[in-house]
Amino acid sequence: MTFSAIVSADTLQSALDSVSVLVDECKIHLEPEGLEIRAVDPANVGMVDLELAASGFESYEADGGLIGLNLTMFKKVIGMADSSQLIHLELNEQIRKLDIRFGEVDYTLALINPQSIRQEPDIPSLDAPVTLTATGKQLDRGVTAADLISDHVVLETTADHELVIDAEGDTDDVQVTFDEDDLVDGRINESVSSLFSLDYVTSIVGVMDADHEVEVRLDDEMPFRMSYDHSDGAASVTYTLSPRIGGGD
Amino acid sequence: MTFSAIVSADTLQSALDSVSVLVDECKIHLEPEGLEIRAVDPANVGMVDLELAASGFESYEADGGLIGLNLTMFKKVIGMADSSQLIHLELNEQIRKLDIRFGEVDYTLALINPQSIRQEPDIPSLDAPVTLTATGKQLDRGVTAADLISDHVVLETTADHELVIDAEGDTDDVQVTFDEDDLVDGRINESVSSLFSLDYVTSIVGVMDADHEVEVRLDDEMPFRMSYDHSDGAASVTYTLSPRIGGGD
Amino acid sequence: MTFSAIVSADTLQSALDSVSVLVDECKIHLEPEGLEIRAVDPANVGMVDLELAASGFESYEADGGLIGLNLTMFKKVIGMADSSQLIHLELNEQIRKLDIRFGEVDYTLALINPQSIRQEPDIPSLDAPVTLTATGKQLDRGVTAADLISDHVVLETTADHELVIDAEGDTDDVQVTFDEDDLVDGRINESVSSLFSLDYVTSIVGVMDADHEVEVRLDDEMPFRMSYDHSDGAASVTYTLSPRIGGGD
Repeated sequence: MTFSAIVSADTLQSALDSVSVLVDECKIHLEPEGLEIRAVDPANVGMVDLELAASGFESYEADGGLIGLNLTMFKKVIGMADSSQLIHLELNEQIRKLDIRFGEVDYTLALINPQSIRQEPDIPSLDAPVTLTATGKQLDRGVTAADLISDHVVLETTADHELVIDAEGDTDDVQVTFDEDDLVDGRINESVSSLFSLDYVTSIVGVMDADHEVEVRLDDEMPFRMSYDHSDGAASVTYTLSPRIGGGD
Repeated sequence: MTFSAIVSADTLQSALDSVSVLVDECKIHLEPEGLEIRAVDPANVGMVDLELAASGFESYEADGGLIGLNLTMFKKVIGMADSSQLIHLELNEQIRKLDIRFGEVDYTLALINPQSIRQEPDIPSLDAPVTLTATGKQLDRGVTAADLISDHVVLETTADHELVIDAEGDTDDVQVTFDEDDLVDGRINESVSSLFSLDYVTSIVGVMDADHEVEVRLDDEMPFRMSYDHSDGAASVTYTLSPRIGGGD
Repeated sequence: MTFSAIVSADTLQSALDSVSVLVDECKIHLEPEGLEIRAVDPANVGMVDLELAASGFESYEADGGLIGLNLTMFKKVIGMADSSQLIHLELNEQIRKLDIRFGEVDYTLALINPQSIRQEPDIPSLDAPVTLTATGKQLDRGVTAADLISDHVVLETTADHELVIDAEGDTDDVQVTFDEDDLVDGRINESVSSLFSLDYVTSIVGVMDADHEVEVRLDDEMPFRMSYDHSDGAASVTYTLSPRIGGGD
């Protein structure tokens, strides 16, 4: 098993952030064409699929291995680097360590046996009737408002061509409404609605940049998907979130 | 009862801040010429009288109603807006809700029965022998120093034309002294002194901007008054603070 | 005993910071040529020797007295001043107080009986085989990395002309390596190594500026010394840190 790569700190950090929002440790597939991570949180509610293509690296060499990684520790190490600094990664399979070098720092990270890490989820294919694209900022506005009064949020679309992010508290309620023309892309012709745990939505939206363009797929009382690219398209992230039972307002 | 208004987020936030420093909920008089709030803290030590004139609004319409409001929640909602964003307020009397709209956000805030809110204080008229005007920054300097060593503070004026903010700790003491010529305005010819709880003074001074010009009225072992305007004179705030018994140094 | 001085807030604050990292109270020698403070932390592990020459003051007058000072309180008082503001210090021996004045503030700080303060350490002379000069930033990089995984750190030099800051966790390890050419100054020809408590090293390096040039003296399983100047050379600080027993990797 061979893995040797050079990547900018900010590309790597963004990729790790998108996974660590759901899990503390994960399996990483070291494919010839790039890294892939699939993970599901302990409650089996949120799934992430991250692909970081070889084109996102300054240099990349891998032959299809699988390693287990302590994401929390890995992120702390990368967090010491300046954002544009190049990180050198090198797998030492015999001693099951990942060597991380940047500037004067040489950190040796012990790997985790992949078999001891929660099984990777099968990301379901969604046949969602509504697909739209919103900015990270728009989604953030919605979940921030919902978070004022509730611990769950309704995501719905209306026959009036609107996306509505909706929450109800004990006495108050809030709606954040985007007309389809306010969004980056997408036509909304159907009325669907699902209820989600706000903890998950807030955390996931929290790792997005304000100007990320996020494709959202929604169905009626069904899982909800958010996908976006970063690092000039080299990284693609897909979240799938299960609805709360009894949802849909 | 009718109330419908448009106001910038920062004007509204400043007005709410000046009241929420003493109470979490309050009655608001929706007079044709503007809003008025009078409140006293639970310990009956600090009183505030806020007037926000119709001229401080982009648009304002009211016919003399009285509503009860959860200030804490109202402030959180307004806090989501950008400071220059316009807030649309509309009272729905039948369902006892205040509709708050800005940008894509539409928040419905449940009102509180005004009768369940602590009675409004009668703001006493003061016949204080000393009236002077200091900046928010000068007052802040004084209370910050006092706060290093004590939980109460003496405000005094001297026959030497000085305002002295004075605190004594177990072993140390501190005086912050302003000659009347250092102040924005006011002649000091009389020697008066009163002792106040620093918690109140610090909180109240904390909501003032450094360049606010604050009229201060002081008497000997008597309540103390601070008044200032903001939002181009549309908002006027008056605090009256009872002295601690046994005070006056 | 006479002491009267005027000094900029930032010079005084930097000087106090370098001592307060080890102790909360200290003796100060008020010598005609300047202040001197020597202190050792309660565990007898870290020693500091601070000299602040009369040239670092705007005005300075002292005749060799000794006072005891509550550093924590002194720092809070100075912390209220703007960094370029001039601090007037005046000893009032009869009432055992130090008068601290700046702007409108007049703070009277009670002194501590010097006899009640832990005895000053004898700073040992070191006959260290390795002397080098690194920046505050370089040292910070090393201790920050070590701090990720351990509560102690190995400082070593190698026959390969390198300074290595080295830490080992339960599963991971990290080395931060500087070639002698990367350093500000110093030739490294000898291999020495000592183990130190990271708490001390982190705190001490934490008070240094990134561009401070710090002279480091290292020996094999022996105390370690860091010295640097600030305030245009008027202040000189020397730290001596005892190694942990069983150290040296």
